[in-house]
Amino acid sequence: MAIDLSPEPAVADLAERTARFVREVVLPVEQRHAAATPSEAVRRELQDAARGAGLFAPHVAPEYGGHGLGMRGRAAVFEEAGYALLGPLALNIAAPDEGNMHMLELIATPAQKERYLRPLAAGEIRSCFAMTEPAPGAGSDPRALATRAERVDGGWRINGRKWFITGADGAGFAICMARTSGAAGDEGGATMFLVDADNPGMKIVRHIETLDETLYGGHAEVLFDNCDVPADAVLGEVDEGFRYAQVRLGPARMTHCMRWLGIANHARDIAVRRAGERELFGSRLGELGMVQQMIADSEIDIAAARGLILQASWELDQGRSGAQSTAIAKTFCAEAIWRVVDRSLQICGSLGVSGDIPLGRFLREVRPFRIYDGPSETHRWAIARRVLRRHTTAAAR
Amino acid sequence: MAIDLSPEPAVADLAERTARFVREVVLPVEQRHAAATPSEAVRRELQDAARGAGLFAPHVAPEYGGHGLGMRGRAAVFEEAGYALLGPLALNIAAPDEGNMHMLELIATPAQKERYLRPLAAGEIRSCFAMTEPAPGAGSDPRALATRAERVDGGWRINGRKWFITGADGAGFAICMARTSGAAGDEGGATMFLVDADNPGMKIVRHIETLDETLYGGHAEVLFDNCDVPADAVLGEVDEGFRYAQVRLGPARMTHCMRWLGIANHARDIAVRRAGERELFGSRLGELGMVQQMIADSEIDIAAARGLILQASWELDQGRSGAQSTAIAKTFCAEAIWRVVDRSLQICGSLGVSGDIPLGRFLREVRPFRIYDGPSETHRWAIARRVLRRHTTAAAR
Amino acid sequence: MAIDLSPEPAVADLAERTARFVREVVLPVEQRHAAATPSEAVRRELQDAARGAGLFAPHVAPEYGGHGLGMRGRAAVFEEAGYALLGPLALNIAAPDEGNMHMLELIATPAQKERYLRPLAAGEIRSCFAMTEPAPGAGSDPRALATRAERVDGGWRINGRKWFITGADGAGFAICMARTSGAAGDEGGATMFLVDADNPGMKIVRHIETLDETLYGGHAEVLFDNCDVPADAVLGEVDEGFRYAQVRLGPARMTHCMRWLGIANHARDIAVRRAGERELFGSRLGELGMVQQMIADSEIDIAAARGLILQASWELDQGRSGAQSTAIAKTFCAEAIWRVVDRSLQICGSLGVSGDIPLGRFLREVRPFRIYDGPSETHRWAIARRVLRRHTTAAAR
Amino acid sequence: MAIDLSPEPAVADLAERTARFVREVVLPVEQRHAAATPSEAVRRELQDAARGAGLFAPHVAPEYGGHGLGMRGRAAVFEEAGYALLGPLALNIAAPDEGNMHMLELIATPAQKERYLRPLAAGEIRSCFAMTEPAPGAGSDPRALATRAERVDGGWRINGRKWFITGADGAGFAICMARTSGAAGDEGGATMFLVDADNPGMKIVRHIETLDETLYGGHAEVLFDNCDVPADAVLGEVDEGFRYAQVRLGPARMTHCMRWLGIANHARDIAVRRAGERELFGSRLGELGMVQQMIADSEIDIAAARGLILQASWELDQGRSGAQSTAIAKTFCAEAIWRVVDRSLQICGSLGVSGDIPLGRFLREVRPFRIYDGPSETHRWAIARRVLRRHTTAAAR
Repeated sequence: MAIDLSPEPAVADLAERTARFVREVVLPVEQRHAAATPSEAVRRELQDAARGAGLFAPHVAPEYGGHGLGMRGRAAVFEEAGYALLGPLALNIAAPDEGNMHMLELIATPAQKERYLRPLAAGEIRSCFAMTEPAPGAGSDPRALATRAERVDGGWRINGRKWFITGADGAGFAICMARTSGAAGDEGGATMFLVDADNPGMKIVRHIETLDETLYGGHAEVLFDNCDVPADAVLGEVDEGFRYAQVRLGPARMTHCMRWLGIANHARDIAVRRAGERELFGSRLGELGMVQQMIADSEIDIAAARGLILQASWELDQGRSGAQSTAIAKTFCAEAIWRVVDRSLQICGSLGVSGDIPLGRFLREVRPFRIYDGPSETHRWAIARRVLRRHTTAAAR
Repeated sequence: MAIDLSPEPAVADLAERTARFVREVVLPVEQRHAAATPSEAVRRELQDAARGAGLFAPHVAPEYGGHGLGMRGRAAVFEEAGYALLGPLALNIAAPDEGNMHMLELIATPAQKERYLRPLAAGEIRSCFAMTEPAPGAGSDPRALATRAERVDGGWRINGRKWFITGADGAGFAICMARTSGAAGDEGGATMFLVDADNPGMKIVRHIETLDETLYGGHAEVLFDNCDVPADAVLGEVDEGFRYAQVRLGPARMTHCMRWLGIANHARDIAVRRAGERELFGSRLGELGMVQQMIADSEIDIAAARGLILQASWELDQGRSGAQSTAIAKTFCAEAIWRVVDRSLQICGSLGVSGDIPLGRFLREVRPFRIYDGPSETHRWAIARRVLRRHTTAAAR
Repeated sequence: MAIDLSPEPAVADLAERTARFVREVVLPVEQRHAAATPSEAVRRELQDAARGAGLFAPHVAPEYGGHGLGMRGRAAVFEEAGYALLGPLALNIAAPDEGNMHMLELIATPAQKERYLRPLAAGEIRSCFAMTEPAPGAGSDPRALATRAERVDGGWRINGRKWFITGADGAGFAICMARTSGAAGDEGGATMFLVDADNPGMKIVRHIETLDETLYGGHAEVLFDNCDVPADAVLGEVDEGFRYAQVRLGPARMTHCMRWLGIANHARDIAVRRAGERELFGSRLGELGMVQQMIADSEIDIAAARGLILQASWELDQGRSGAQSTAIAKTFCAEAIWRVVDRSLQICGSLGVSGDIPLGRFLREVRPFRIYDGPSETHRWAIARRVLRRHTTAAAR
Repeated sequence: MAIDLSPEPAVADLAERTARFVREVVLPVEQRHAAATPSEAVRRELQDAARGAGLFAPHVAPEYGGHGLGMRGRAAVFEEAGYALLGPLALNIAAPDEGNMHMLELIATPAQKERYLRPLAAGEIRSCFAMTEPAPGAGSDPRALATRAERVDGGWRINGRKWFITGADGAGFAICMARTSGAAGDEGGATMFLVDADNPGMKIVRHIETLDETLYGGHAEVLFDNCDVPADAVLGEVDEGFRYAQVRLGPARMTHCMRWLGIANHARDIAVRRAGERELFGSRLGELGMVQQMIADSEIDIAAARGLILQASWELDQGRSGAQSTAIAKTFCAEAIWRVVDRSLQICGSLGVSGDIPLGRFLREVRPFRIYDGPSETHRWAIARRVLRRHTTAAAR
């Protein structure tokens, strides 16, 4: 009944074992497969190893093979998993699958769970979440949603263009968000649809080349072209898609932060190790004040990021919306993690920009995080609006 | 046994009542007595009110009239008290008295507690902590301690010069730190002495004019000139002063952060209120993106500061040293609180720099906090050194 | 006909003599009169000395006793004058008199010049510029001008409230900007009026307490209450006030920057001197990396500020509007100078926040500069709009 | 004889024609050859076009086919050339050839000029500058130079390892810096040697993969393994290499800044165009305050960078060392250009991180610039030391 910041023993144990697994099993694989996305064989190898270590899909319910971790538990474990770029893939907690599992557990019917959640949680298939659209469609502003679904005999017909659909290539199914009432620009209603990958109406148009390279399956542009789905492809209720999106996006924002924080830890460790070894002007790098300042600032950034993630996770675990706290945490983490990687690279000098160590790659991986899941500016706008509303309401009383 | 971020009900109640008390009782007094330090009469009036409201000295043990709040409880209550500049004085939790009570509870003998702690906790007397010395003496580097105490018949004789001794003028006693072995520049040993204010060897040389004006009694330069004290004036053990200083400084750093965070909240509220009312270029200020950005950044800063304070407070409550977490929290808070006040003032424009609202005063009050209790640079240096050491140790295993 | 960055010998000589004069004559006076605004006697003493040294009012035409410096020449000389807080007053180049002389030279009739410019340039009288109004009046948005002037028999009748009118108390006359057509919120037309200080319709309502304290005469709230002025009190053309305001404000913005840059130089020098002397942890402060970083960043800020001032000054000297370059320079300088003072204070630690050295006072003096002459946000908005327009125009071709 | 900021007409004309050439000729080629380094054929095609347009090698003396531009002239022209990543290659002003030509013109014997400078200036061959070594060799600290040259019969024998040798692969010759007296860590003496590419003692060990990809020929690790060179391979005087390095590095630092500033302009333009077109939340992006702030900050950064480049260029043209002004300009530019690209990418959102527009690539190109040519920290250290020395000297007088 009082404030307590130590995780349950079971969570602490899982986190510690994850940390060891990532260093001993995942990192060596990662170093062998440097700049490239791993093959399907490597994915299966890593996931088998995680399964063998009892670390697989820790966030899903035990009946689907996981440990049923709440958000606070994920905070501890995902940060450790994120220490390696491929750590989340190994544990089957990478985006977008992890967020899709979360949402399916909350919203799907029993039949849908058997068909989609069970194999997804088992790592037998992958998935994607088809929401974002090229401008002027849905992005920072979800109300701009332009993809439409219309009732047809026995189901729905979806038409529209999506992009930045992570993992679409090779996914077993997509969760597609389409407008089912209202017009682009107004609130109206959106609905989520489960679309099988072999549906001929869903076409992967192209791979979008991006700064980041690690998210499995890359980012695709996907066309829904008279894509017909049956009535039971509706996930949750018709017209409730915007609400579900929030159900998915709040936690997904946080798990993103947790995983990327692992990258920041890794970057910091590389830099600190270098600072402890490299001599310059007769001192070790770590004895130079400007290097110390960068190390300290990174340590502060990491600690503050962790605190904000914990606050938001706790609110979500309490069943609160967490709209403000997840927006605050996401905005801060995306920028703080970026700063940590940037400073770490700077400490390593020429070596840092070379492919000999992974900091350049980390930099590329984390830069888009200030845009993905809502650009910092959109979050800041939302944060400020809530603060202003809070005061207006307070004043009106 | 799991992570929990909600304070105990008793603490939550105390915090809420403190918030109300500060707004209803303290702020009106403060506005009447603007730029100046309040008189002794005002201090007594405020403290009587707090006592009447059952909010007085909440951090000391019940036997001394308080609520026995641990660090986590202080975090909640002190932040509310800090909303008004005079709030901490009203609750008798202002620096340096609050930190002195903390240390006396931990280290003093029963007799010393009766003589010094009891009247201090009751607000009957005030105190000061005489550690800092003008350059090149003790400051960022405690080992530079130059004030010396030598054994004389029946006690000790202290000689040295101190400055920035907050509250010295009018204090009933001082806790003076003096070197009892070794020489300035080496570790050696320091000892803490309880010096009564009427000791003819302790002289207030002058008031130091400073940017900040609120700390009660101001900052004095104090001369210990053949200042003789009896043997039982030693607080704790001889030569253990550096260790006790850490006992005092870690928590004191945090309570400083808590109180100043209250100022940040107040500054933010003033700015948000202004942003909700003032029209510019046909919009309300709060609808302008650059203003929203400042509001959001302040909200993020406040949330991150609170998270770091909580982490450090929890560690201290667990009996851990908290050296790293208090240094991280202090460094971040001092800068974040400064940014919040600076942005709030900026949002208010000309009004902000005028004496019509207190933001200019807040700015003056919080600027020194990046220097008091250890400049940010000293803390960053210590933070980095610990990180580097952690890695070296890890590598050596 | 090629780029040349060395000032003319006459200007270089004037700048160098100003630097010497400020250090040898003004600073000693300033140190004697610390925190307070100097008395009228001190003002006269300083101005007599500057006159004796051939440094007085260097920006006005020789026929009014000056050196006829253009903006580039002012850049060199005013920066040196600004090294002391009272330097600009000594040389009669302080705001708002300096800007008023500039405008009178450009716009006033010969009779007005004799009556107002000549004694002002000679330091016999002072002046003020009554434009800014309390919200929701003229401030960042000049179109919000609410003070009105209506034609009456033989002249005009002015009604309205102004605030932050620097130097109003003790001024011999005001230049008052009032709306002569249109309504508050639209462009309409404004007119500038010369109002003698003994006009019974112009009333100083109060002194506004502000963070800054040096500007001579302080900042006043001024009421124009049926203030009647004759027809020849119109400065320039009726309804052309907004245009004239730009004529005044562009250069005034720059001369403000030049003078404050002198403060930054002074702050930097104090910190560098301290860094060269003070020992900490066995090193001189100046050998510590974090201190070096602050010193280097200040050096960079000062150099960049100087470059931007020069660019804008040169454009103004070419007869170009300089709207963009003065906005850029003002925004950067206000923030850079603030950073330099802030860092300098931080380097000096406790001493820096004490009244023993003037850095705390400098901090208070320069903070409002991010608001006065247009808040940074307003300038950024204007800068961005011009950039966007430039591109739209380019695209349309 | 007074300050003048307008370039000579001939320079202005060259700059304007360069701007047109880059947009009309180079950018289309660049867009065809996206992420990859262009082939030798493309290099020749681009250089032929530049030659045809009378824009080739504008910085070398007319007798070598150029326009003899001084540093101020280069500032104007190189910035325009840098607008395209391949612009500098097209004009034969890319690093490291441009800096090598500069140094050869100043130091080489007539015979060396015929043999190396003439074909280099003509674009017939390329070159490299072999100075940097892997840690703990020469890098931020030139005195750490470990590569040695010893006198042998008829010349010198060079042994050592270099890395980050830009353009080494395919270069016709290298300028290699080797220690000819003293030991690694002390000042001693270094000498520059001209080494033909077909010298069997010079071996390209590997290509170093780096964040940046545009510099022609990439960055190589090069081994000098009993590399014998004749006596007339010495460039300049024996043991004067450190001094020559400064001759090369000061200007090379500036031309780097000029070229990268072109990238910043380009990034800014892409973002501004996007901001003028893209609609979000019912506004154009460019009407949103946070976007305006980013645009304004970039405009300020670019203007300040340009001013600092000009200052340093002018000093170099006066024959002054420019040590301080080039360090200031390089440090500021590297960080400002990075910020401009980063903000531009942020404004473009998901599109910005995609390969559909070149901002992600720009980000990768400019990040290393904060490390190449001396990390910002090394420059800051040097800047601060000079400031401190200046004050110490001033105080000693």
